[in-house]
Amino acid sequence: MSNMLTIVKTTNPKSKPPQNQLGFGKHFSDHMFIMDFDLENGWHSPRIVPYAPIQLDPAAMTLHYSQTVFEGLKAYRTEDGRILLFRPEQNLERLNQSNTRISIPPIPEKDVLEYLKQLIATDHDWVPAAEGTSLYIRPFIIATEPNLRVSPANTYKFLIILSPVGSYYPEGIHPVGIHIEEEYTRAVRGGTGTAKTGGNYSASYKAQEKASAHGQSQVLWLDGVEKKYIEEVGSMNVFFKINGEIVTPALNGSILPGITRKSIIEMLHDWGMPVAERRISIDELCQAYKENTLEEAFGTGTAAVISPIGEFAYNGEQMIINERKTGGLSKKLYDTLTGIQTGKLNDPYGWTIEVK
Amino acid sequence: MSNMLTIVKTTNPKSKPPQNQLGFGKHFSDHMFIMDFDLENGWHSPRIVPYAPIQLDPAAMTLHYSQTVFEGLKAYRTEDGRILLFRPEQNLERLNQSNTRISIPPIPEKDVLEYLKQLIATDHDWVPAAEGTSLYIRPFIIATEPNLRVSPANTYKFLIILSPVGSYYPEGIHPVGIHIEEEYTRAVRGGTGTAKTGGNYSASYKAQEKASAHGQSQVLWLDGVEKKYIEEVGSMNVFFKINGEIVTPALNGSILPGITRKSIIEMLHDWGMPVAERRISIDELCQAYKENTLEEAFGTGTAAVISPIGEFAYNGEQMIINERKTGGLSKKLYDTLTGIQTGKLNDPYGWTIEVK
Repeated sequence: MSNMLTIVKTTNPKSKPPQNQLGFGKHFSDHMFIMDFDLENGWHSPRIVPYAPIQLDPAAMTLHYSQTVFEGLKAYRTEDGRILLFRPEQNLERLNQSNTRISIPPIPEKDVLEYLKQLIATDHDWVPAAEGTSLYIRPFIIATEPNLRVSPANTYKFLIILSPVGSYYPEGIHPVGIHIEEEYTRAVRGGTGTAKTGGNYSASYKAQEKASAHGQSQVLWLDGVEKKYIEEVGSMNVFFKINGEIVTPALNGSILPGITRKSIIEMLHDWGMPVAERRISIDELCQAYKENTLEEAFGTGTAAVISPIGEFAYNGEQMIINERKTGGLSKKLYDTLTGIQTGKLNDPYGWTIEVK
Repeated sequence: MSNMLTIVKTTNPKSKPPQNQLGFGKHFSDHMFIMDFDLENGWHSPRIVPYAPIQLDPAAMTLHYSQTVFEGLKAYRTEDGRILLFRPEQNLERLNQSNTRISIPPIPEKDVLEYLKQLIATDHDWVPAAEGTSLYIRPFIIATEPNLRVSPANTYKFLIILSPVGSYYPEGIHPVGIHIEEEYTRAVRGGTGTAKTGGNYSASYKAQEKASAHGQSQVLWLDGVEKKYIEEVGSMNVFFKINGEIVTPALNGSILPGITRKSIIEMLHDWGMPVAERRISIDELCQAYKENTLEEAFGTGTAAVISPIGEFAYNGEQMIINERKTGGLSKKLYDTLTGIQTGKLNDPYGWTIEVK
């Protein structure tokens, strides 16, 4: 089995969607990356091939027991036409942390970073240039062994697919409304909340339906044990500015360790504005609202980068934040982080990597 | 779009594995059932086709967000050559309960029961006859829409595959050892524990690795909130006989409502031996062991039917139950339930359905 990357280019390139109608995750580029795992050869046969359906045995274990992990990161087009990746090594490190939790064999991170760069170089003309657009990169691993026993598979596929995207939220950078969920649970200590595994996401749909029925965009998740402490918003980490203090829930064993979250904490530390990583209860949030000290709230994630929160709905009451306008801190973080990501601003942290 | 079942038979039937080497979920029959869902047509195009790989777009939502549900039931060969299904309508009802939790459109249960019977009739020679064998039936639904947005898909596939199986546990009806898990969590109230969805199963592998490392066969799961109350064993429900009382954890919103569990409760009620469905703590179990009143323990599920427990390992201590021998109640339940399932005993409950 070879470990040399092979590239087979498409003979039938697709037409590209207009850059102002990209949406999120609807369009896919001309090529994809695949490699295989088996017990004898480990990860092998890395290859870039034309984007096409894959064949799976109907008993493939991922279809039954959801043994799967994924990542999400982006490539950005700079004004002078270069392509930048944002902290990709962090995503591959987290992918291996997810692999550990879901009993999937680790990937060779350095090799995979090279394969990823080669894939983007192959589809370089799929990185859009319009304001707010980027190329969303989705690495994922699926268990392929055809067997119904309830235990880790012996064979896997690792794939990377690429999707040119606009803004994740149709509302764009405008603040969104958030439904505080008290019935459904996203994750609990000892569960899979810290891993990017599929089961966490489909498990959230029911609460999202409730949020939508209440006219809100996203769900705020409380902890699974006491239903009291704030964990995440939708599929994002969450930050608050309360009476001048910037707070985000501490990584407690059920919260996803976001790379945007980490970058924001590092930036704010650099700006002399330390972030308190601690428990924050829904009662504290309500109290701050009553006392007029809840200054800002925002979600953070790769897809949206910063998503300001304009309203929380809780127990039939509305908490309007900053008159539903994007707050100064949210705006500054968004502008700085997207500025670094797109090369408009200097990158003092060495977070961006150019794809040649 | 048609809703008439079509059947395309294989022209290349497989050779059947020896009935004494079936194992669990390794071999698959000659045909499978498929139907599709889209928003315009609902569930449509039911068909029985030769067992073969399916094609999925690499962006198919089930591969990323694990929007999937499944069921497991069995067909048994009677001594006079007939084929019996055990309470299949219960499985289809539960599949729709899982669908509701995972935001998948409901299936037409009555139609699907007919399709299932037709599939088994088509592959009737795949129902093995040897002692302890059966045909395991795996209905499952996967989200097929190629899209990376985090929300329910607009297209799905429902499949049924068939696997001739021996005993699920290589140890057979002999009692197994159980590791009591204190770190990892299977499910929590508000989560997906009551649904048969893939994410619950891959989430359990890490704890199973610990059990194996401790020389035990299966994991005993404690509740996710207090880590104090007993929920399930492996992927089975669990029963205890303590000082003459038969106890099983009450369905509390994080325990799977097992059909074997339900059948056993109904049988025991019929025998004048009511089952207490209540909370049972690990402390109560330890106390009963110390007082020599922990008479029997067993897991229940479709795959194993009854799996006697011979030992619990907890905090470095061993609790040996009934000298590691199968208890009288476990044996009577196993013999009666498998007797009804295989037609050896009269079925006073109307649980079995013959496939003609």
